[in-house]
Amino acid sequence: MKKTLILPKGFSAAGIAAGIKKQKKAKDMALIVSEVMAETAAVFTTNQVKAAPVKWDMKVVEHNGARAIVMNSGNANACTGAQGSADTEATAALAAGKLGISPLDVFVCSTGTIGKPLPMDKIAAGVEALFAEVSPDGGMNAAEAMMTTDLVSKTVTAEFDFDGKPARITGLAKGSGMIEPNMATMLAFILTDAAVEKHALQCALRTAADMSFNRITVDGDRSTNDTVICMANGLAGNEAITQHSKHWAHFLQTLEKVLFELSMMIVKDGEGATRVITVKVTGAASNGEAEEAARAVANSMLNKTAWAGQRPNWGRIMDAIGYSHAQVQENKVDIDYDDVPAVRDGMAAGTPEEELVAAVSKEAFTININLNLGAGHTVVYTCNCTEDYVRINVE
Amino acid sequence: MKKTLILPKGFSAAGIAAGIKKQKKAKDMALIVSEVMAETAAVFTTNQVKAAPVKWDMKVVEHNGARAIVMNSGNANACTGAQGSADTEATAALAAGKLGISPLDVFVCSTGTIGKPLPMDKIAAGVEALFAEVSPDGGMNAAEAMMTTDLVSKTVTAEFDFDGKPARITGLAKGSGMIEPNMATMLAFILTDAAVEKHALQCALRTAADMSFNRITVDGDRSTNDTVICMANGLAGNEAITQHSKHWAHFLQTLEKVLFELSMMIVKDGEGATRVITVKVTGAASNGEAEEAARAVANSMLNKTAWAGQRPNWGRIMDAIGYSHAQVQENKVDIDYDDVPAVRDGMAAGTPEEELVAAVSKEAFTININLNLGAGHTVVYTCNCTEDYVRINVE
Repeated sequence: MKKTLILPKGFSAAGIAAGIKKQKKAKDMALIVSEVMAETAAVFTTNQVKAAPVKWDMKVVEHNGARAIVMNSGNANACTGAQGSADTEATAALAAGKLGISPLDVFVCSTGTIGKPLPMDKIAAGVEALFAEVSPDGGMNAAEAMMTTDLVSKTVTAEFDFDGKPARITGLAKGSGMIEPNMATMLAFILTDAAVEKHALQCALRTAADMSFNRITVDGDRSTNDTVICMANGLAGNEAITQHSKHWAHFLQTLEKVLFELSMMIVKDGEGATRVITVKVTGAASNGEAEEAARAVANSMLNKTAWAGQRPNWGRIMDAIGYSHAQVQENKVDIDYDDVPAVRDGMAAGTPEEELVAAVSKEAFTININLNLGAGHTVVYTCNCTEDYVRINVE
Repeated sequence: MKKTLILPKGFSAAGIAAGIKKQKKAKDMALIVSEVMAETAAVFTTNQVKAAPVKWDMKVVEHNGARAIVMNSGNANACTGAQGSADTEATAALAAGKLGISPLDVFVCSTGTIGKPLPMDKIAAGVEALFAEVSPDGGMNAAEAMMTTDLVSKTVTAEFDFDGKPARITGLAKGSGMIEPNMATMLAFILTDAAVEKHALQCALRTAADMSFNRITVDGDRSTNDTVICMANGLAGNEAITQHSKHWAHFLQTLEKVLFELSMMIVKDGEGATRVITVKVTGAASNGEAEEAARAVANSMLNKTAWAGQRPNWGRIMDAIGYSHAQVQENKVDIDYDDVPAVRDGMAAGTPEEELVAAVSKEAFTININLNLGAGHTVVYTCNCTEDYVRINVE
């Protein structure tokens, strides 16, 4: 039986095949609708080259509230100039017409091929089909329609209550290649029926994204289309949460949990990846330098391929931190795989090879790197790189 | 018949199997000897984690002149602490004893596994065997003994003359993975019988390396062991070249040519690579920003895999320059594959897809990126990435 996804109160969704992807039967358009105006927050790619829908959504989130998200997963609508912007606005207008609202109440998202004009006839027919299907049970169809090279659809739900008033956060996400901080070809829609004041919602989303989507890396490539949108429609009936509410911390933690779980699903489903690796750096001169060292290790192809081979090749870790922008004193560096010492004072710790091999052969493990220079620390989540990554991206 | 390599006057070489590599019959130690003291210059890795022989060679090049280079290609002698330094000095002393010179007249180089102690018994026996074999005809054996994952040995020779006095530059190099500017797991020995004053030699080598070895990238990983050594023994009998000599420009150009050809051999032999791609950036706000943009493109796995698939996926180029540290205005960017327009004003140039496919299907091609913002420019040489890269580095 097909998994169902319980959406928060007042949200409905749909996912259909509009023929935008080459595989004609693959779902490639999704719709999410809130029956009332929702408060919104969003986080976007830091790439200087931004797809047309990203630029559009930046306007939508500035504007007061929104009711819908329309997305396609076949065409990125990036590097498409004025026509791309016009097509995005036309897409929003089509959905807005159905709902009797302003186009600026509609987010538009996309992922897929860059540089091709959006097939507006298919988009228009797709919007019709989406509105014919949209329902409170349509969440899984929407999640499936978001997928590109993803092997699995990605959804997380969490429940909580405000003094007896139950509320829910549901997250839908896609993404598996071009994944790197800030953010990646990843899209995530976070829906909640909690009432949250706008600034609090933006603060919570930014904080949660920094602890999750911005901590994962698959291949170090940041995309033109990354977007995380949060809609809070208030139908749970709670008093709107602010950063001073007694429920603030609980709401933030729940949101963080949802985003973290989604981001772990993304990194686990990294193109060609078979294992998740956590890279923890402590003892850096600053948090920023810890970040530089961690990302150098997490993005090094030599490390990612070593992890695919289940090899405790700590020399490649030493090499990567050495060429990172973090200060490193070779003879102070300690490295452990989980709690198995690999390096002490920049040299082999003397642990028998078979114990190191066992440590890096687990489905998931943590590389603990202590630079022993200061108090800077960070954590980054990455995956191994197999030949499948190349095969997928060559094709 | 085996290729022979003509060494400059007064140089002899050898390459033997000392049993340091796992494949016992593979050559893994090389020796180069000048019959007289040679002037020296060198360029080293910028990695903060430097192998013991790199630290040793920094002392040798500071010192006046040298007569020999001893290298092994099975053990990097990196991350080996005080023992690694002692082993390096002992290796130099073994060769120095044979020649009746100071250990500081002997360069020591290595590449291979990081973090394992050098097997000094094998090194000692290897030095004995090298001195038993060393001869003016031993150049090809030395070049073969430098190879690790290299598929071909890499040598270049150039001849020139100083007012009728013939001279020669011979270069031997290795390197195919962990290749990135400044520099990579690459070693190169540049030998000449020209007489060159020390500062001029260092200036010429630095300039030539910046135009060659520092312009290539295979996987963005810089190694702990990269070393380029130049020895000029003066046996051509010319008046020592300075930066003010009438022969300076000619010498520099010849040296640049040798280093450039070696670096092209390295990038062509990149692990798993089948094609060389030149990335030219013009119109950047500065040369530094041109460099940032070019390296983002050249190191992007999504681009390298697209090139393996012979796909004109210029969207991935737009994406990479967009997340680089170079300023980019999307609607000003022009991209051509050789002289075939792919992007104009940040959008598809309208060239038929089959013409773009033909352009990126050539064995070598240039990606010309004009940011149209300023006068900054650069060029970087890279290779495509096939599944073989991953296979090689997993194993």
